Amino acid sequence: MKDIQNQPDFRRINIKKVGVKNISYPITVLDKEKKTQKTVATFNMYVNLPHQFKGTHMSRFIEILNRIHGEINLKNFHLILTEMKTRLQAEAAHVEIEFPYFLKKTNSKVSGTVEYQCKMHGSLRDTDDLVLNVQVPIYPPSAVQQEKGGLPKSLGHWGVATVNVRFRHFIWIEDLIRMVESVTCHDLFWPGQTADLSRNNLEVETLCDALGVKFKSSNDIKWFSLEVKNFSEGCNTFASMEWAQNQAEAHPSLV
Amino acid sequence: MKDIQNQPDFRRINIKKVGVKNISYPITVLDKEKKTQKTVATFNMYVNLPHQFKGTHMSRFIEILNRIHGEINLKNFHLILTEMKTRLQAEAAHVEIEFPYFLKKTNSKVSGTVEYQCKMHGSLRDTDDLVLNVQVPIYPPSAVQQEKGGLPKSLGHWGVATVNVRFRHFIWIEDLIRMVESVTCHDLFWPGQTADLSRNNLEVETLCDALGVKFKSSNDIKWFSLEVKNFSEGCNTFASMEWAQNQAEAHPSLV
Amino acid sequence: MKDIQNQPDFRRINIKKVGVKNISYPITVLDKEKKTQKTVATFNMYVNLPHQFKGTHMSRFIEILNRIHGEINLKNFHLILTEMKTRLQAEAAHVEIEFPYFLKKTNSKVSGTVEYQCKMHGSLRDTDDLVLNVQVPIYPPSAVQQEKGGLPKSLGHWGVATVNVRFRHFIWIEDLIRMVESVTCHDLFWPGQTADLSRNNLEVETLCDALGVKFKSSNDIKWFSLEVKNFSEGCNTFASMEWAQNQAEAHPSLV
Amino acid sequence: MKDIQNQPDFRRINIKKVGVKNISYPITVLDKEKKTQKTVATFNMYVNLPHQFKGTHMSRFIEILNRIHGEINLKNFHLILTEMKTRLQAEAAHVEIEFPYFLKKTNSKVSGTVEYQCKMHGSLRDTDDLVLNVQVPIYPPSAVQQEKGGLPKSLGHWGVATVNVRFRHFIWIEDLIRMVESVTCHDLFWPGQTADLSRNNLEVETLCDALGVKFKSSNDIKWFSLEVKNFSEGCNTFASMEWAQNQAEAHPSLV
Repeated sequence: MKDIQNQPDFRRINIKKVGVKNISYPITVLDKEKKTQKTVATFNMYVNLPHQFKGTHMSRFIEILNRIHGEINLKNFHLILTEMKTRLQAEAAHVEIEFPYFLKKTNSKVSGTVEYQCKMHGSLRDTDDLVLNVQVPIYPPSAVQQEKGGLPKSLGHWGVATVNVRFRHFIWIEDLIRMVESVTCHDLFWPGQTADLSRNNLEVETLCDALGVKFKSSNDIKWFSLEVKNFSEGCNTFASMEWAQNQAEAHPSLV
Repeated sequence: MKDIQNQPDFRRINIKKVGVKNISYPITVLDKEKKTQKTVATFNMYVNLPHQFKGTHMSRFIEILNRIHGEINLKNFHLILTEMKTRLQAEAAHVEIEFPYFLKKTNSKVSGTVEYQCKMHGSLRDTDDLVLNVQVPIYPPSAVQQEKGGLPKSLGHWGVATVNVRFRHFIWIEDLIRMVESVTCHDLFWPGQTADLSRNNLEVETLCDALGVKFKSSNDIKWFSLEVKNFSEGCNTFASMEWAQNQAEAHPSLV
Repeated sequence: MKDIQNQPDFRRINIKKVGVKNISYPITVLDKEKKTQKTVATFNMYVNLPHQFKGTHMSRFIEILNRIHGEINLKNFHLILTEMKTRLQAEAAHVEIEFPYFLKKTNSKVSGTVEYQCKMHGSLRDTDDLVLNVQVPIYPPSAVQQEKGGLPKSLGHWGVATVNVRFRHFIWIEDLIRMVESVTCHDLFWPGQTADLSRNNLEVETLCDALGVKFKSSNDIKWFSLEVKNFSEGCNTFASMEWAQNQAEAHPSLV
Repeated sequence: MKDIQNQPDFRRINIKKVGVKNISYPITVLDKEKKTQKTVATFNMYVNLPHQFKGTHMSRFIEILNRIHGEINLKNFHLILTEMKTRLQAEAAHVEIEFPYFLKKTNSKVSGTVEYQCKMHGSLRDTDDLVLNVQVPIYPPSAVQQEKGGLPKSLGHWGVATVNVRFRHFIWIEDLIRMVESVTCHDLFWPGQTADLSRNNLEVETLCDALGVKFKSSNDIKWFSLEVKNFSEGCNTFASMEWAQNQAEAHPSLV
C-alpha cells in the first residue's frame, strides 16, 4: 500500500500558482525610533490552487491590497493572507514585498541616511509563516582620520551580508541590521584599522561563521539562513549557511 | 585676434566636475490632489570647478542635502543649488533626482496605484535651470469587456513615452502625465478598441508627432524633448524630437 | 526511536555552501543548426560542505572552470561537477550558468536574430542532475500586412513564458523554444490576427494550461515547471505550474 | 540681420531621430593578442531626419546590420553608417554598440578572464566620428600573500574609472585598459600594499587628475573625457574631466 505520508512533495507538484507581480506601492513600515517610516515597495501576491481550478479573479488581489492602505505590520500581513486564502478559495496564500529601509547613521564613515534592501515573505497555509530578509552592505572602516569638513577616505565596497530570519519574538529591522553590523564592523575583521594591512585576513567563510554564532545566540530567532559575499576582481566569493533551532522549524510551510 | 566669444564649448572643456552620486533618500514631492506625496529618490549632486581646484569637501554635499529634510519643491531646489555654488566656490551646481511618482487611476484597465518614473535636473550657473522628465508607459486599451470581478484582459506593454520639459509656468507632474496620456490613450491610436485590429496602424513616428503637436500648444512649456519607444520582437523602434519656443531656450545653461 | 528517514531536510540544514559567483566568461554552446554557437555566460560555482569544514580554496573553482575552455556540453558539465566534488571534498557540487542564446528567425514579425535568456543548473550529489531554463518572450502577431520594406506594426510585448525542464533524452535549446512558441504563437490565442480584437481572450491561466498539456505530451521530459507572465498596467499577472512524470522525479537532488 | 552662424544648436532642434534600440547580437571584435574575440553586443541604430520626413522604414536598419555579420571594425562601422545615411536619406547616422570585452589576466589578484564593459558610438554627418568608451573597475591590490592554492584576500571593489576617447591613431581596447590600469594599480595610489593603511589617501580627484595627465601625454588621443567613481557607504563620490587637443576637437559632430 502506498504511504501517502511519505509523498509530501509529490502532492505539492499538483499545485498551480496564480497571482500578480511587481506592483509598485508606497508603504509605511514600522521604525523603532520614529515609530513608522514611509518608503516604496514592490509587491507580489499569489495563491496555490488545485490544478483543476480555473479563472482566478486577478483584480481581487489589488482590491485586497488596497484595503490596508500600504500600512505594513504583522496584523495587516495576517489580514491580507487570510482574505486572499478565503476569497480565492486557495490552499495557501503568499505575499512578498521588497523595499528600501532607511537608517540614520552618524559614525565616522557616514553622516546621514543609509539604505538597506529588505524583503518580507509572508505565507499562510494552515498557519502563518513570515521570513524577513535584510541585505547589509559591508564597507571596511575608513583608514584615515577625516580632515575638517571632508568625507573620510573610502576603501570601497567590500561586499554584502544577506540574512533571512524566522523570528520567535518580533524583531525590529534596525535591530537585525545592528546584529549584522556588530559582527561585520568588528575590529577583529578589520585589523587594518588599527594595525597594518598585512594582517588583514578577512574571508567570507570566517565572517559567515561569526555571523552564524551571533544569530544562534539570539532567543528571538528560530530559523535563519545567511550569505556573505565579497566583491573580488573577476568573481565574487561567497559562503552561506542555514540553521534551525529544532527540526520542526526546518520544515517551513512555504512552497 | 582670437574671438573668445566664439569658443564657448572649448572653455567648458577646461572644467572638471566633482560630487556625489546614488544617494538614496526618502523625499516628499508636490502632489496636485493630496498636496504632497512621500516617495524615495536617488540623488546626484555635483559642481563644475576650474581644473586647478583641489580637494573638494565631499561631505558638504551631504550636509546641504540634509538641510532640506527631503522636501522637494522649486524653492528648496534653488536653495540647495545656491548653497552648493557658494560653499564649494563653483562655477555651476547640479542636482539630479530620480523617483517613482504614484498616481491613483480607476479606469477600465487598472484600479489602484500606477507608478511613473520621474527625474529632475536642476542646475545653477548664472540663472536657475530645471528640466523635468517623466516616463509614461503605453498600454493598449483592453479589448474585452471585463467579467464581473475580473481584471480586463491585457494586450501587454506596447511601449513608453519619455518627455523632458523646461517650463515657463509651474506644471504639476500629474498634468504632464495627463498631457501625454491624452494622446497615447486616444481612440485614434487604438482603433482596435472599437473596431477590428486590422485598422491598427500605430507607429512610433505618428505618436511622436502627435505628442509634439500637443506639447507645442502648451503655453506653460518653453522647451521639450520627447521619445516614443515601442517594444517589438528582436528590437525596440523609437522616434524622438526636440523643440524650443525660441532660440534662447535652445541654449540651455546645462553642461 | 527517531526515524532518520523522515528528517531529510534537517540534515541538510547543517550544510554550508561556499563558492564563486558572477564570473563572466565567453562560452560555446550546442546549436542544432550550426553545431555550436559563441555567446557570453555568467557562472556560479559552489559546493555543499559540512559545517566544520574550513578554508575552502576559492581559486580551485576558477582553475576547474578554465580547464573546459568555455565549451559547454553535457560531458563537460559532468566533468566540472565531478572535479569540484572530488577536489573540494564536497557532499554536492553545483554549477549555474546564464547566457543569451540566439536564434535566427524569419517570420512575419522579425527578420534577423532573436535573443532568448537561458540558464542551466547542474548539480552532482550521488548522481547528476540538470535543469534547463529558457525564457520565451511573447509578442502578439502583427495585425497589419507589412508594407514593402517596412517592419510590421508591433502590438508590443505581451509577456514572457519561462520554462524549466529536466529531460529524459537530450533536448536542443531551439526545440524547447519551438515547443513553447508552437503554443504561444498559435491562432487560438491570437484570434485578433484574423478576426476582430473583441474575441481576444488570452489569459495567463489558459496559456499556462496549454503549455502544460504540450510539455506533458513529450517523451523527452521527465519534470518541468513553467510560468506565464503578462505585462499589464500597474501589475503583471502570472500563472505557474509544476509537473513530474512520477514521484521519484518530484524529489530532485538539488538543495 | 540675423547671424546664422550663431544659431547652430537651434537648427539642430528641428531634427527628429528615428531608429531601433536594444538589438542583441553576437559580434566579433578586434583583439590585440588573439586577432579577434567573440562576444555579445547590444546595438542602437538611428538617423537624424528633418521634421517633415515621414514613414521611416525601420526594417532597413536590421537589413543593414545583418550585412556585416557582426564583424565589428572601423571599416564596417563606416560601411554601416554610410549605408544608413544614404538609404534613409538622413542628415546624420548613428550606431551605438555596447559589449563586454574579455582580457586574460594572471596577476597576483586574478587568474583567468576579466570582463570590461565597452561602448562605441560611431556617427556620420559630413565626416565620421567615433567615441570609444571603456569601464575599468578598480580593486585595491590584495594585501596578503596568497596561501598555496588560495585566492588572495580581496579588499573589495573600490570603484570604477570610465574613459571616453576619440583617437587620432587606432588604439586597441586592451591598450586603453592598460593605460588606465597603469595609473589605478600604481603603488602611489595603494601605499597600503607596502606600508600601513594609515597612509592610504586615495581620492577620486587625485586619481582623476593622474589619469588626465596620462591621457594628455598620448599622441594617439585627440579628445577624452573621464570619470573616477568610488563606492562609499551611503553615496558614491566622483570626479570627472574633459579634454581636447585643440579647439576643433571640442566641437564634435555628434548631436
